[in-house]
Amino acid sequence: MTRPADPVRWPDGTRAAAAFTFDVDAESAALGVSHHHADRMSVMSHQAYGPLVGVPRILEILRRNDIRSTFFVPGYTAHRYPDVVRSIADAGHEIAHHGYLHEAMTGKSESEEAAILDRAGDVLERVTGRRPIGYRAPMWELNWHSPKLLADRGFLYDSSLMDADHPYELAVDGGRSIVEIPVQWALDDWEQYCYIPDFSGSGLIESPLKAAELWRLEFEGLQSAGGCFVLTNHPFLSGRPSRAAVLEELIGYVASRPDVWVAPLGEIAAHTRSLELTPRCIARPDPDDF
Amino acid sequence: MTRPADPVRWPDGTRAAAAFTFDVDAESAALGVSHHHADRMSVMSHQAYGPLVGVPRILEILRRNDIRSTFFVPGYTAHRYPDVVRSIADAGHEIAHHGYLHEAMTGKSESEEAAILDRAGDVLERVTGRRPIGYRAPMWELNWHSPKLLADRGFLYDSSLMDADHPYELAVDGGRSIVEIPVQWALDDWEQYCYIPDFSGSGLIESPLKAAELWRLEFEGLQSAGGCFVLTNHPFLSGRPSRAAVLEELIGYVASRPDVWVAPLGEIAAHTRSLELTPRCIARPDPDDF
Amino acid sequence: MTRPADPVRWPDGTRAAAAFTFDVDAESAALGVSHHHADRMSVMSHQAYGPLVGVPRILEILRRNDIRSTFFVPGYTAHRYPDVVRSIADAGHEIAHHGYLHEAMTGKSESEEAAILDRAGDVLERVTGRRPIGYRAPMWELNWHSPKLLADRGFLYDSSLMDADHPYELAVDGGRSIVEIPVQWALDDWEQYCYIPDFSGSGLIESPLKAAELWRLEFEGLQSAGGCFVLTNHPFLSGRPSRAAVLEELIGYVASRPDVWVAPLGEIAAHTRSLELTPRCIARPDPDDF
Amino acid sequence: MTRPADPVRWPDGTRAAAAFTFDVDAESAALGVSHHHADRMSVMSHQAYGPLVGVPRILEILRRNDIRSTFFVPGYTAHRYPDVVRSIADAGHEIAHHGYLHEAMTGKSESEEAAILDRAGDVLERVTGRRPIGYRAPMWELNWHSPKLLADRGFLYDSSLMDADHPYELAVDGGRSIVEIPVQWALDDWEQYCYIPDFSGSGLIESPLKAAELWRLEFEGLQSAGGCFVLTNHPFLSGRPSRAAVLEELIGYVASRPDVWVAPLGEIAAHTRSLELTPRCIARPDPDDF
Repeated sequence: MTRPADPVRWPDGTRAAAAFTFDVDAESAALGVSHHHADRMSVMSHQAYGPLVGVPRILEILRRNDIRSTFFVPGYTAHRYPDVVRSIADAGHEIAHHGYLHEAMTGKSESEEAAILDRAGDVLERVTGRRPIGYRAPMWELNWHSPKLLADRGFLYDSSLMDADHPYELAVDGGRSIVEIPVQWALDDWEQYCYIPDFSGSGLIESPLKAAELWRLEFEGLQSAGGCFVLTNHPFLSGRPSRAAVLEELIGYVASRPDVWVAPLGEIAAHTRSLELTPRCIARPDPDDF
Repeated sequence: MTRPADPVRWPDGTRAAAAFTFDVDAESAALGVSHHHADRMSVMSHQAYGPLVGVPRILEILRRNDIRSTFFVPGYTAHRYPDVVRSIADAGHEIAHHGYLHEAMTGKSESEEAAILDRAGDVLERVTGRRPIGYRAPMWELNWHSPKLLADRGFLYDSSLMDADHPYELAVDGGRSIVEIPVQWALDDWEQYCYIPDFSGSGLIESPLKAAELWRLEFEGLQSAGGCFVLTNHPFLSGRPSRAAVLEELIGYVASRPDVWVAPLGEIAAHTRSLELTPRCIARPDPDDF
Repeated sequence: MTRPADPVRWPDGTRAAAAFTFDVDAESAALGVSHHHADRMSVMSHQAYGPLVGVPRILEILRRNDIRSTFFVPGYTAHRYPDVVRSIADAGHEIAHHGYLHEAMTGKSESEEAAILDRAGDVLERVTGRRPIGYRAPMWELNWHSPKLLADRGFLYDSSLMDADHPYELAVDGGRSIVEIPVQWALDDWEQYCYIPDFSGSGLIESPLKAAELWRLEFEGLQSAGGCFVLTNHPFLSGRPSRAAVLEELIGYVASRPDVWVAPLGEIAAHTRSLELTPRCIARPDPDDF
Repeated sequence: MTRPADPVRWPDGTRAAAAFTFDVDAESAALGVSHHHADRMSVMSHQAYGPLVGVPRILEILRRNDIRSTFFVPGYTAHRYPDVVRSIADAGHEIAHHGYLHEAMTGKSESEEAAILDRAGDVLERVTGRRPIGYRAPMWELNWHSPKLLADRGFLYDSSLMDADHPYELAVDGGRSIVEIPVQWALDDWEQYCYIPDFSGSGLIESPLKAAELWRLEFEGLQSAGGCFVLTNHPFLSGRPSRAAVLEELIGYVASRPDVWVAPLGEIAAHTRSLELTPRCIARPDPDDF
């Protein structure tokens, strides 16, 4: 039977962890669904808002609050906006892997996925000078073969699964493992804010105050539970002025809790690795097995 | 003409009843729609959060508030997580039937549905040592032949219909009946919280405070009406820390009303049976009849 | 050019009107979309809640607040629940026409629509003893030929269009007209509350407090504008205890305004007719005309 | 690499700008999607509410608050409601171009789009006596060839892109440029209010207070950022009494800020042009380029 992840201890007397992560999807979020979206100038400009306006605004917020964070960057974003991506790295933040064209990996073979991982890893290394150690599957769609592909390439961690309140070691094979830092749909700004006709969303656009209420409540819940709060924002969405302002309030609130460790995912993963946890095996469900 | 259900009297001077029920769908909610969802590691992990993290948290909440409840468990959940299901039963809660793979029964023949009922009944009995006496149709989709199938198998009650504020005896045939404990869509956490791309939801994810407002108002309405408040939560959704915290507040509020009887559905059904109500016949609508 | 409706004067020194209307769709709302929904026992029970539980609760609310109202009843509802429909009429409320099986009339020919109008008119007359004088198109989908069909049958009014804040005379032909009492989507409970899988809704279920805020604001706006507030509730939705309670609060608030005339639509239509307004012609748009 | 727009200075010591714009889509919003919607009398009346009731109400609000604004008018609206469109111009507001039948331009060739631009320009000129200098693409769907078409026709500005918080010069070719005044989905009333079955919306209809909260927050964010707040309202939606009342409150709030310049888009564009900014080139993304 698949067993729950063991609890983790947090460093320096803290009892919970928090990370503010950003997925710099830009145009690739739409192009990964269909190359035809490239024909839609307004949609492309909607996505370009992320690197052009959202990222600088978010970097300034993080600087003001003295927070280091993790930015998941599709290879195509690094190809199209190398200066933006370098500015993130130069500000001391972690650049992590987020596919090449934000491709949904569902249904892709191991070799197809490997090619995408390598292509995007190459461009990220070329632009930033270093190979990322963290991965987040586009659309949070990990395949069962993905962890092995990540281990083969020396990744320390992935952040795409949803079965725990805190990180764990995920068994791969041959005694190998990667650190998994779980996420959840309620801690993502896409569901609260994203509407792009004929691409994403039903038309719902929430007030930033509603999103912040949802996120603050879950932060407090995870804080009590000793978990790891991983919030995911997209600069093309949360880079808008009022959303950024509300996010900054939340960042300030979280960062001011003395019992919470705020860190980039790479550091959270390194801490988790240092705990020498027993790797968890997750068995693929087989609905025909009985 | 189909007639409304007669009012029921509640025990011990109470004027309304309440049950906090949990559907432990886990992976089966997605697999019942398509076996292909098994390929989606992240989706599977999203569902696994229920038994792995949500159930222990909910059991602790129920223990703290001294509440016994009913957990509807698909057969596949019991097969995959037998220890989790036993831990629920060991804590004094009722285990009830919820299909094998959370199959929507719409369009299934009587014999197909019978086979699923038996298969899941077998695994629940094997895991918990006893045959369930209660049933809830996956997706709350009861067929017109379902009540007879349940009566044939000795079920005391079903909880899938929506035409009354309180339980009643549902006529089956030959003078037989089963107790029906009605539910409603507004008292379900799925509509408030569930978003799984390419499977369920439009992207809407509500704040727990909004869900709790909705549920508390309807509890108060049913309390005034002398009805039976049946709330349905899914551990993979409401087991998340902030949702569980808000649910615990609601449980505490309801449990502290002196005029409300909080009980598992099995006990509510037994009480209803003891009232010796005249069974209701519900006629299948025939839109061609005129 | 189509011209706006002229303002109307309201009786007895009031400056606005209000009507609380109820569409008793019951099973027909689903059956009109597909007869196959008859196979879904739970869906049918969800719809049956309206006549069985919602209508008696709403009648009691109207009685307590001394309000007479208009109930739009599909023919099939009258066929299946004649006693319920008679109880509405016996309480002094108006029974009006709402199709036979809540058929969307879009695409129906004049003769097809005429047959439905007559069939439902017959059953309503058989059950209540009188022919309805008011009509509301199912789904608020009026055809361009519908007004003539209504005038041919002696209807005084329709309540399905959306191009004014108050009633007007709608020109038909040959100097004939019917009174039109406009509605709007925001003053309908379906959008706030209705979720039925594989039939209606995206999963959104709002709190009654949100719906009431929306409706109260629009009432106040129409009150200021001298308009006619027409709220549409469905007993299978707003008959639930907490929604009914919130609706009763709104009814009490509206009814207590000394400058607002609360009346059934039939009386509002008769008052409008008495004003001897010049009938409005509405020209069908022709996008190919230029 | 595409670079962000340079900041702009605002006139007379103000630090931000604001425009309340109105898209008078009326019937064309539905007809542009399918001519068959012309058969739906209720849908057509829903759209007609805009010019018939919404526009006069909005003109009165603008007059009371001493605000001049920009109205984007599809050619068909001017054809069908010439007096309404003239009344807008006569009140001192700007009439700008919004397609002929609100056609989504995606997939249209350069010559097809040119024909639509000219046809609508002709009717607007015939009705108002002057050729519009501003354009907003229906559905905010600009093609990559659209800016050149606009420059060819002497347009001063477009307002359909989303990649900045304030206006900029958009390079076209041969040293030519047009002013771009960006918009965003969160500052549009359609997502908050629009539901038309089988045409638009999932059923969500928000309270005006929620919409106003969202818009006020973003106004304050843009005010702080020195940006340009461009709100888009549709008279068929925001012309309803309570929405108009809430909009008037927001207008009053914005107009009372001493550091905010409220103006029609034409004047904002002229001011932007006067700054002699370096035109921005936006490169079409090519997902196959690597």
